[in-house]
Amino acid sequence: MFRSRLTSVGKLPAYRTQNFIANSWRDASAKESYAVFNPATGEEIAQCVLSTVKDVDAAVSAARQAWPEWRRTTGATRADYLRKLGAALEAQREEFSLLETLDNGKPLEQSRGDIDFCVEWFKVSAEIAEDFDKTPRQELPTGDPSVRAYQIREAVGPVGLITPWNYPLMQSVAKVAGALAAGCTMVLKPSSVCPLTSLRLGDLALEAGLPSGVLNCLSGSGSGCGNAVASHKGFSKVSFTGSSEVGATVAQNCTRNLVAPHLELGGKGAIVVFDDVDVARAVDWIMFGVFLNAGQICSATTRLLVHEKIADRLIARLVEETKKLRVGDPTEDGIDMGPMVSAGQQRLVRKYFELAAQEAEVLAGGNLIEGPGYFVEPTVLRCSETSALWTEEIFGPVLSVRTFASEEEGLRVANDCIYGLANAVLTADPERATRFGESLEAGINFINCNNYLTPWVPFGGIKLSGFGKEFGREGVHDYTHNKIIVESKPSFTVSQFVKAS
Amino acid sequence: MFRSRLTSVGKLPAYRTQNFIANSWRDASAKESYAVFNPATGEEIAQCVLSTVKDVDAAVSAARQAWPEWRRTTGATRADYLRKLGAALEAQREEFSLLETLDNGKPLEQSRGDIDFCVEWFKVSAEIAEDFDKTPRQELPTGDPSVRAYQIREAVGPVGLITPWNYPLMQSVAKVAGALAAGCTMVLKPSSVCPLTSLRLGDLALEAGLPSGVLNCLSGSGSGCGNAVASHKGFSKVSFTGSSEVGATVAQNCTRNLVAPHLELGGKGAIVVFDDVDVARAVDWIMFGVFLNAGQICSATTRLLVHEKIADRLIARLVEETKKLRVGDPTEDGIDMGPMVSAGQQRLVRKYFELAAQEAEVLAGGNLIEGPGYFVEPTVLRCSETSALWTEEIFGPVLSVRTFASEEEGLRVANDCIYGLANAVLTADPERATRFGESLEAGINFINCNNYLTPWVPFGGIKLSGFGKEFGREGVHDYTHNKIIVESKPSFTVSQFVKAS
Repeated sequence: MFRSRLTSVGKLPAYRTQNFIANSWRDASAKESYAVFNPATGEEIAQCVLSTVKDVDAAVSAARQAWPEWRRTTGATRADYLRKLGAALEAQREEFSLLETLDNGKPLEQSRGDIDFCVEWFKVSAEIAEDFDKTPRQELPTGDPSVRAYQIREAVGPVGLITPWNYPLMQSVAKVAGALAAGCTMVLKPSSVCPLTSLRLGDLALEAGLPSGVLNCLSGSGSGCGNAVASHKGFSKVSFTGSSEVGATVAQNCTRNLVAPHLELGGKGAIVVFDDVDVARAVDWIMFGVFLNAGQICSATTRLLVHEKIADRLIARLVEETKKLRVGDPTEDGIDMGPMVSAGQQRLVRKYFELAAQEAEVLAGGNLIEGPGYFVEPTVLRCSETSALWTEEIFGPVLSVRTFASEEEGLRVANDCIYGLANAVLTADPERATRFGESLEAGINFINCNNYLTPWVPFGGIKLSGFGKEFGREGVHDYTHNKIIVESKPSFTVSQFVKAS
Repeated sequence: MFRSRLTSVGKLPAYRTQNFIANSWRDASAKESYAVFNPATGEEIAQCVLSTVKDVDAAVSAARQAWPEWRRTTGATRADYLRKLGAALEAQREEFSLLETLDNGKPLEQSRGDIDFCVEWFKVSAEIAEDFDKTPRQELPTGDPSVRAYQIREAVGPVGLITPWNYPLMQSVAKVAGALAAGCTMVLKPSSVCPLTSLRLGDLALEAGLPSGVLNCLSGSGSGCGNAVASHKGFSKVSFTGSSEVGATVAQNCTRNLVAPHLELGGKGAIVVFDDVDVARAVDWIMFGVFLNAGQICSATTRLLVHEKIADRLIARLVEETKKLRVGDPTEDGIDMGPMVSAGQQRLVRKYFELAAQEAEVLAGGNLIEGPGYFVEPTVLRCSETSALWTEEIFGPVLSVRTFASEEEGLRVANDCIYGLANAVLTADPERATRFGESLEAGINFINCNNYLTPWVPFGGIKLSGFGKEFGREGVHDYTHNKIIVESKPSFTVSQFVKAS
């Protein structure tokens, strides 16, 4: 099936299976490799090298060697590299999109959207890099006429970047472009499940002429190579995107060395729909928040709270539209939802399907789809507020539905959550929209839209969803620290111990 | 000796030995207590309660109960409380100063300076709190005409605050006033070695009419109560000031629960003195950076790099002035340096004196002073760049001296350090001052002054000195997160899955 699909979509895109260290492609120090699969067919598509601590040391060493020169570059210089990276990616949009879909399983059109977002973020981060030149020194109040104080925003240093498999290239580029704009050098460890597009960042770096050692990329497992990156003393910061459970381990590993953690973790977002909305439009935003990328989205709004007055009508339409979704080979035109990323992820979702069969009312879906490939049905169910289906992150196309009667109740249930990444509210009442949208507890809340992001807008969570932001100015600034300078005249003295002569 | 001194300085100031939870003074759940000593005499001055995990739970519970109301206060309301706290402290300046000196051992005049700094920080943080009302929403670019984005700066939630014994009240107030200004509720765990002034924050809170549960303060050990605070799941952030070693443990404890750490840790600052300075003035700033508070300062500049052209002259004067320092009972007028804070700290310094006798040239000091009390001599020594005397934080009045020949050499040696908290450079050449001062690697660098802080200026380190800032706007903002709102019109649609009707 895999080979036949390839003939219909064109030739197999190029990919890399080695490490990219100091601008060269290298085998890992041990001669072991691991298989990468196409989740739509279950077929192996590549064997990538399995890096060890020794390879991580080599990559960190390259990043640290590149740092003294890279830190001295101007924002304009870094912007130039960022634009070249964006242009190189844009020129290979189709190849990268197909590679992402073969590796991750998301519909080709969604991969194209991801690549476009990456291109845009390279451009936006270039603009933000240029800002560093415009305001190199920012004056601070001191409350004291005898001293002047100002701050200089400086890159934190070499950073470790660990990214997940759900938006493989986008999650890598989120960190890579942000760190480059700030002036950091870096070691990127993309997920072993979907490494292929991220490894090709090495090719883009060569095309853009990025100095050797600024961007290094490692292929390997999370438990081996990923932990070695998080545990390395050579970084100033480690930025991780993934589950809250693994995030806690990463934070443990880096804080042991007093390396600062930046964590983008799990979520269980709510979408709250009032009774004054257009039902078709609301159903589209609800589905957008849970069925895109087969629900494998940390900011997915997988808890639907619908006002009881329109609940029957809206849920009926939602179920009808969900049943119409075209699930299948993601390289085909017109497919709405591809497979889960892996057999393991399919198993996780099956566990929740089994729970739903016991303690929920399944309105649509609720089953695995016979292979090949790791497909599951898009699912809508009703469950209680205490069900794991309501409280746990599933990371699959599973929407749990409840109704609410008052604004107060809706807010209480939406905010009763251990996570705080993203929520949404839909209402035609502008005052309620602002009041409610601003009261939702999360790093980002959407009013009359859902999971609608641009590279200018910072993204990041609170509670168990982590801390720190990606994208936007704040996303770049999270790779910097403010160096404070306190300056007085050479004649200034406090004569604490010695009288000036 | 202790009792006789008390008659000369007036009556014993009032102090608290219990926990302050939900606006009431309480015994700990277990009936154990520990002794607090006057380091100038070695005499016990109080028995404070030893809190357990159960007491920490009670305090966190109080902070969490107070949070829903406190988070809704305006900046103006919080400013009002902060000014009342500052006024209450100002009115009791002499009592607090004496209490600080009896507990910590620093000269009374230095305690007065600390209290004044606290009063000022309450006032400054009140002004910063008011800013929250002025700009509740900050617009962000989106690059997309179909959506508007803005951010709201919100308090992170209940926070845990763990503070050290070197600036007992000032380190507590740094965190408490910052967290209050931001809108957090809190549990403060001051050092068991010097808890007396921090515990009295409870009295100030009562005087200022602070709502119950907003500020809670616990007496107890670092290994028991402190670890329990750092390990508690009930906080959104834990802010710690102390050694890098303990800081790593605190960070481990809080990141296990995905609670964000804020760390103000150790240092080994350099002061670089060029050959164009006024020697007397330079010697004063050098001594200011190492003999104030008997060198028990994380931002102490304990590595002196002096240009070889003036080295002989400057070092001779430095040694002469160091030998003139009046070391003794810190409640006496005209005392320059009191004792080390504890017998344990005196032992630590003695270890370095023993090392100095072996591998350094001791130019002044280098001995303990016979008790009672934990006194040591202010010390100046020459050692190699590889000596532990040059590389390790001593946290005592021990200055290590080296010479340098070129600007390049001076910068290299100053920056060759695992810490990055504070440095200083003294030079009459304004271009060199800027070039050199900005190239020193630390969170804060002083040009033509040293360790000269005002509450408006953010303070915090890089490398093994931690991350995050205290004081200034950034110090308050570190207790907040930016909530992002992305808003579109109720008619906006992407029609991904459903065509709008």
